[in-house]
Amino acid sequence: MDGFEFSTDVTVRFAETDAQGIAHHASFVVWLEVARVAFLARYAGGYNALRDRGIEALTTEVSVRYHRAAHFDETLRVWARCVDMRGARFTYEYRIERDGELVADGYTRHATVDRETYRPTRVPDWLIDAVSAGSAPTAPASSA
Amino acid sequence: MDGFEFSTDVTVRFAETDAQGIAHHASFVVWLEVARVAFLARYAGGYNALRDRGIEALTTEVSVRYHRAAHFDETLRVWARCVDMRGARFTYEYRIERDGELVADGYTRHATVDRETYRPTRVPDWLIDAVSAGSAPTAPASSA
Amino acid sequence: MDGFEFSTDVTVRFAETDAQGIAHHASFVVWLEVARVAFLARYAGGYNALRDRGIEALTTEVSVRYHRAAHFDETLRVWARCVDMRGARFTYEYRIERDGELVADGYTRHATVDRETYRPTRVPDWLIDAVSAGSAPTAPASSA
Amino acid sequence: MDGFEFSTDVTVRFAETDAQGIAHHASFVVWLEVARVAFLARYAGGYNALRDRGIEALTTEVSVRYHRAAHFDETLRVWARCVDMRGARFTYEYRIERDGELVADGYTRHATVDRETYRPTRVPDWLIDAVSAGSAPTAPASSA
Repeated sequence: MDGFEFSTDVTVRFAETDAQGIAHHASFVVWLEVARVAFLARYAGGYNALRDRGIEALTTEVSVRYHRAAHFDETLRVWARCVDMRGARFTYEYRIERDGELVADGYTRHATVDRETYRPTRVPDWLIDAVSAGSAPTAPASSA
Repeated sequence: MDGFEFSTDVTVRFAETDAQGIAHHASFVVWLEVARVAFLARYAGGYNALRDRGIEALTTEVSVRYHRAAHFDETLRVWARCVDMRGARFTYEYRIERDGELVADGYTRHATVDRETYRPTRVPDWLIDAVSAGSAPTAPASSA
Repeated sequence: MDGFEFSTDVTVRFAETDAQGIAHHASFVVWLEVARVAFLARYAGGYNALRDRGIEALTTEVSVRYHRAAHFDETLRVWARCVDMRGARFTYEYRIERDGELVADGYTRHATVDRETYRPTRVPDWLIDAVSAGSAPTAPASSA
Repeated sequence: MDGFEFSTDVTVRFAETDAQGIAHHASFVVWLEVARVAFLARYAGGYNALRDRGIEALTTEVSVRYHRAAHFDETLRVWARCVDMRGARFTYEYRIERDGELVADGYTRHATVDRETYRPTRVPDWLIDAVSAGSAPTAPASSA
């Protein structure tokens, strides 16, 4: 995908559909999180490594535009990239596709805080370095 | 309701429906929890009072029988009673009704554990006493 | 609330929290929907009146900014207003507050389509008229 | 797994955890459904083949016993088998394991109905035959 180098696939669960017969729009917000977790999992222990250090990544903003409906049992490819990680804040961008067709896109913003005090805490350098270096991995990281 | 003295109402959210056009069966499990929380809220600080004392109430069993479908925007009455509270275990029974008609019934079993160690911890006496005494409140406790 | 005349209250369910100990960010997206449904319920049969006429209101965009964490059992007031309803599209704006303090704000965009063909269908005039007239109701419409 | 020949894996999503720091008990009910869908997908078009024929499989009973807590990002193996399929009713049994350790078990019961009339409709013979024949597949059907 243009400008994206990582993706993970999700299959629409029946529980994620609604009475319109399509995937409920809040389900997409969960899929973005699934993609973030899979994205980070490639780096130094991933999200749990952050949590083990007492750092929580809060979500401060979610924005999703829905272009096509998704349906039960369809497999969607969620492309994700971390576009801005510095200080205590970072941003992800996403494209959700079905067979190469755009289904939704959006972004999320996050802030890292200390788990005990809930005060802003810088994203650890090892993670910034890993994500920066990882922005151009040698092999496609798409998961099946 | 025969044998029940407490109920709380929930209205089926659109997000709780599925592509069958009815409320998804997992939504009912959440409504039982809503009813437990509302039931306990009448006693000495409720569920948060337990949690403030470092006690978590785990769910160890869920059983639901679905008799009729529920639909978007319908208001359901969830009757709940605590039928067995002793040691570190307690059981709730439920009936979910729509306009007096049985929609679902079931029960859940729970165990109280210490939040840090996850070891069984007795249900506090003040709660057992409160629930026992509360089993026959003078006024209907149904919430609208 | 400044510029808002309708609100509905939601209480954070335990199932809506996550392992950060706060309400999961996707839960807010569901609460916005709960507020939209309650908003429309005041007009000519509400959302189900639309659906009965074979019209589905799709969500085409969701944007939420999270200003404070929400916690289990807290009651949040969700203010909602329909700011632009014409043709086959409409937009809602929201503010979520806890005791008058801003917890989150955002907007959603929607498109009305024919249920069978999924082609754009104009919002019915009776609904536009009702919502327009309703934009300045004589009595506060806040629900408890 | 003793007596089970099919399994599918799920990884606990962050959205599926709760403020106890573990997977919420209602999440397990969704995972059972994920396993049913994966189980049926091996037979003649799966669940969507049923739906395309105007048959809906309703859930009439859910029973889950929770033996151990599950946590964010853990991969769970959900074993499923269809133990009784005849007339308009069928039953599934499940075991959820983490690294071979029992996390939860349970069963669900279902009834097939006509999508339009919601009247009971027999499970199609082709599906009964397929599931019966499939009860002893030649190759392990575990999905990774």
